[in-house]
Amino acid sequence: MQTFALLGAGFIGRVHAENLAAQPHIRFARIFDVDPARAGELAALHGAEPAAEADEVFADPDIDAVLIASSTNTHADLLKRAAAAGKAVFCEKPIDLSLEVARDAAAAVRAAGIPVMMDFNRRYDAAYAAVHDAVQAGEVGQVELVSMTTRGPSLPPIDYLKVSGGQMRDQTVHFFDLLRWITGLEPVEVYVAGAAMVDPAVAEVGDVDTSVAVLRLANGAIVQIDSQRRIGYGYDERIEVNGSVRMVEAARHRTGFVNHYGPGELRTNGLDVGWFERIRGTYRKSLDAFVDALEHDSRVPAPLEDGLRAQIIAEAATESLHTHRPVAIPEGL
Amino acid sequence: MQTFALLGAGFIGRVHAENLAAQPHIRFARIFDVDPARAGELAALHGAEPAAEADEVFADPDIDAVLIASSTNTHADLLKRAAAAGKAVFCEKPIDLSLEVARDAAAAVRAAGIPVMMDFNRRYDAAYAAVHDAVQAGEVGQVELVSMTTRGPSLPPIDYLKVSGGQMRDQTVHFFDLLRWITGLEPVEVYVAGAAMVDPAVAEVGDVDTSVAVLRLANGAIVQIDSQRRIGYGYDERIEVNGSVRMVEAARHRTGFVNHYGPGELRTNGLDVGWFERIRGTYRKSLDAFVDALEHDSRVPAPLEDGLRAQIIAEAATESLHTHRPVAIPEGL
Amino acid sequence: MQTFALLGAGFIGRVHAENLAAQPHIRFARIFDVDPARAGELAALHGAEPAAEADEVFADPDIDAVLIASSTNTHADLLKRAAAAGKAVFCEKPIDLSLEVARDAAAAVRAAGIPVMMDFNRRYDAAYAAVHDAVQAGEVGQVELVSMTTRGPSLPPIDYLKVSGGQMRDQTVHFFDLLRWITGLEPVEVYVAGAAMVDPAVAEVGDVDTSVAVLRLANGAIVQIDSQRRIGYGYDERIEVNGSVRMVEAARHRTGFVNHYGPGELRTNGLDVGWFERIRGTYRKSLDAFVDALEHDSRVPAPLEDGLRAQIIAEAATESLHTHRPVAIPEGL
Amino acid sequence: MQTFALLGAGFIGRVHAENLAAQPHIRFARIFDVDPARAGELAALHGAEPAAEADEVFADPDIDAVLIASSTNTHADLLKRAAAAGKAVFCEKPIDLSLEVARDAAAAVRAAGIPVMMDFNRRYDAAYAAVHDAVQAGEVGQVELVSMTTRGPSLPPIDYLKVSGGQMRDQTVHFFDLLRWITGLEPVEVYVAGAAMVDPAVAEVGDVDTSVAVLRLANGAIVQIDSQRRIGYGYDERIEVNGSVRMVEAARHRTGFVNHYGPGELRTNGLDVGWFERIRGTYRKSLDAFVDALEHDSRVPAPLEDGLRAQIIAEAATESLHTHRPVAIPEGL
Repeated sequence: MQTFALLGAGFIGRVHAENLAAQPHIRFARIFDVDPARAGELAALHGAEPAAEADEVFADPDIDAVLIASSTNTHADLLKRAAAAGKAVFCEKPIDLSLEVARDAAAAVRAAGIPVMMDFNRRYDAAYAAVHDAVQAGEVGQVELVSMTTRGPSLPPIDYLKVSGGQMRDQTVHFFDLLRWITGLEPVEVYVAGAAMVDPAVAEVGDVDTSVAVLRLANGAIVQIDSQRRIGYGYDERIEVNGSVRMVEAARHRTGFVNHYGPGELRTNGLDVGWFERIRGTYRKSLDAFVDALEHDSRVPAPLEDGLRAQIIAEAATESLHTHRPVAIPEGL
Repeated sequence: MQTFALLGAGFIGRVHAENLAAQPHIRFARIFDVDPARAGELAALHGAEPAAEADEVFADPDIDAVLIASSTNTHADLLKRAAAAGKAVFCEKPIDLSLEVARDAAAAVRAAGIPVMMDFNRRYDAAYAAVHDAVQAGEVGQVELVSMTTRGPSLPPIDYLKVSGGQMRDQTVHFFDLLRWITGLEPVEVYVAGAAMVDPAVAEVGDVDTSVAVLRLANGAIVQIDSQRRIGYGYDERIEVNGSVRMVEAARHRTGFVNHYGPGELRTNGLDVGWFERIRGTYRKSLDAFVDALEHDSRVPAPLEDGLRAQIIAEAATESLHTHRPVAIPEGL
Repeated sequence: MQTFALLGAGFIGRVHAENLAAQPHIRFARIFDVDPARAGELAALHGAEPAAEADEVFADPDIDAVLIASSTNTHADLLKRAAAAGKAVFCEKPIDLSLEVARDAAAAVRAAGIPVMMDFNRRYDAAYAAVHDAVQAGEVGQVELVSMTTRGPSLPPIDYLKVSGGQMRDQTVHFFDLLRWITGLEPVEVYVAGAAMVDPAVAEVGDVDTSVAVLRLANGAIVQIDSQRRIGYGYDERIEVNGSVRMVEAARHRTGFVNHYGPGELRTNGLDVGWFERIRGTYRKSLDAFVDALEHDSRVPAPLEDGLRAQIIAEAATESLHTHRPVAIPEGL
Repeated sequence: MQTFALLGAGFIGRVHAENLAAQPHIRFARIFDVDPARAGELAALHGAEPAAEADEVFADPDIDAVLIASSTNTHADLLKRAAAAGKAVFCEKPIDLSLEVARDAAAAVRAAGIPVMMDFNRRYDAAYAAVHDAVQAGEVGQVELVSMTTRGPSLPPIDYLKVSGGQMRDQTVHFFDLLRWITGLEPVEVYVAGAAMVDPAVAEVGDVDTSVAVLRLANGAIVQIDSQRRIGYGYDERIEVNGSVRMVEAARHRTGFVNHYGPGELRTNGLDVGWFERIRGTYRKSLDAFVDALEHDSRVPAPLEDGLRAQIIAEAATESLHTHRPVAIPEGL
């Protein structure tokens, strides 16, 4: 039985805390947050001990693994300290907004040989997993066209957008990972057309809120990913993989099956309100997979390298957005 | 190439006229209607000759087959005259509202040995045919429960209801035929609960506008058929056959796939406006099957006997509605 | 904050235990089961105390409310003991298989004036609640036809069927309650046609596995409820309320939106595997409603009287099944 | 009543001939085809006169309008001859594969002042028309993202591809028109990524079979159009318009509603076999609109200028495909 500590007690930290507490194969021992009150409160709720400093956690020989759920700009540093301390890590994405910083952390991780799994939790969505399995089983034949949609209900605050790294690094990046995972193919080139349709302030901070990314995969297949920050009808994600033999899609996720029939019209359930409603269940399954890998001493399913690859693609996509030209995606890490 | 005459130039007669004119394997020669002007007009439209009397048609040696589309109370007489004249008959349902009269006509038809096909055109609906084929191919296993829905958008005029024979004989009867055809099983007992929910005048003429018929099939399976004269959401038919292995259904027929997504809601296409919009295409296919049988001298797909059986079931259902008791359905004709 | 005890630590007891432990507004104090080991184990899991006897619970002045989740034949007795002890009760359905025994327990409850809520948890299914709300808001107009489906994936053991009270009392009864709740109308007559299609042993114990119940509501509307013990395609429940203005339905609950498109064909997610997968979330919400009523000292949403009414309908339905005649449903309790 | 002649008696000519013959407000007088036998046969079928030369048609003072359905390379010349003869024209798309030749024909048409309608028949698809109407009525708010799909079941012969003008001019062009028509906005820039995934011979003739075009509209909105020549699951077209308020889509057109439910799975109707099955009904409605405009002397709904605009966009898209860069779309004609 592995003993875990949680780093970060904000919104997503609290989600992880609940899952850590409910996970039957681990012991959930400690919680650190920059705000000690927040750490203390969450620790009390789940019967864990608060830590006054992150180093308490790293120095504690009982702790086998840490779950990094603190703010993005702390991830790389915590990864390096975990590497130094020889702790396994389950890490919220991304590694860092700066690819250089991320690479530096990755190097430390590799040198230390600790297992690090990125929390690419959408891989554990039942629908996306079904698409992955169908594609990997050869059901669609050769992949020829992939279509992905990621659309949220409302524009994040402009202050957030300023430090988010931009739509590609902040929003589309999750689908860059899904693309690699589902197809098993590396994208080699990307072109992005984007616009600030919702609020001119988005453009003023150098970002877009509406975009389409077009990628080429190593086998020549074409990919389209549309990303929107604010749509008028809820939260919308979908993935479609179209191959030489057939097509498989994770279609829009409607919230139910209540039908109101009137003259010439059917009204029925629409989409989820937001991203959390759509994918909340996936955090638990993602954590379970990490615990399972630790227990069986097997390779974690979404290693740090996958995090780096997704960021490398996002980097090229961001460059295309700004240069207005297709950009080659470098191989390797 | 068979030569056809049409008897009846009302609404459904005009539908048949168009199909007769377009049928590539026959010659559409004559039209009779009690209203000579109506016959003349329709004949002119399709390049056929009007007949002043029905007997002109029966006496014409060039006529091989007649299509009876006149008012219900003339069907039995015309069938007998066609039998006497040795003409093949494609006959709108029912044979007659009186089972006795229908039996008498059937006897004449049998004695003469003419081919008579009832226009059970719903058998040629693509969805119902698919259900029939799946059931007959054994896909559902042993039939255990059948659910049928027949619901129209508006109450017919009370003057029509007075002479319609009642909901079982006028509306539900089409599904009694579909039931026998799809399952290949005879119903042995029927119970009907009905009500006049739309207009008290319906009850005053001894009829109902809303009913559920429950039947037992020869193999023990249970059947439910709900019939409504007036629903608030268009025209609704569905059939579901549930067997020991799986279930097959012809679900509601929505008119399209235009989706309007708003917050928490999807608005999309509803059902057809009326029965004609739903099944108009089936008249042509039903006629084609008759022509094909004549051409190949093979058994017609829905012989007069099927018309009698459907009426016998409707008769028992009507008795149950009035006696408020389950009623055994007699075997045979 | 109310203090709860759980009576019964079997399958459904364990479901309730988890919900009691997670309910933020109560204290979950004690667990009793006829099998002390089972009680002890479940108590340990949730930080509650096991009770050696049910009377320990009733005698404990700290206990405000008990949740009865023991075997059906103990419900009535426990209700009476709770009444005597002045404890509020959240009670699994049914009160008792014998209507007389149930009435006796109800009398004791009424005399004591304790709040008792039946766990008619399907009322807390989001889809059924939406249908209820639409009907109660007048969206469908006058109710004219109600269609309900309750179908399970596999035949229960014959030994269970022997003591189950029969399909009406054991399976259809939940929909008798939903019918009253959704429409706000009392059924006044019922006719049931049933058959043992799955296994002759079902008939040997005097039961059926496939049935259709037809009811008349107080306003004249017709209701059809089909019940099946074993279908070949999973677990299937649906409810449709068809009124003078429009129709609302809780349609089949498909488990997802993964589409596999091949030539002429779409394969997609089917139905839930079983009842628990379909309605597991409703137990929590049902309990929440009870706790809320206790906290606010308001009327419980599904009082014992609703349990009695559902059983009275099931009793008449069972009589109809055996006498093969429509049976009047007595008014009152 | 206008008198029509048909130019071209190939596959699409025969479709138009049937519609011309059935159109109640016109007289269908003559048919010309380069193959006199083909013209004669089709003329005989519909009671029209064959013409030995196209000039017979243009010289015939009885002819008010011609329908150009001959091979693409003859359209421009026939348009100019119709302009010279003062005949109204209903013209199959495109005007010509060469934009220059098309412009030259358009100039002649403008000079002569004859009404010319391009047969952009997809505008008459009920689903696309519903999307158009919703967008034009402001239902979606400001257009922000448009997604279009055009995918066919099989690769055309390579010999056809050689002279087709390439995927943008031959396939995607129909959606360039729909895009302008539905949104009422002009695209100002286009980027296309394409690949020959199906057959290397496609690349050898300088074409692609799989592509994504990304466009910017005048208001800044982004558009993605994916085009495939050969998919494994039938024929697939869809259009989605996503605005500031809500989203409207013409979703995949499934061919029916027959559901086969098995354990965990639903099999149901897939998509149309090919383009003709999908849009056959639109040719008739498109012609009706032309006839209606002629009768009421009103502006034709899809004037030649719309044909030119669609080609200008296709031209820029083709340039982008080959230069691998976004290309500005010139304004005007």
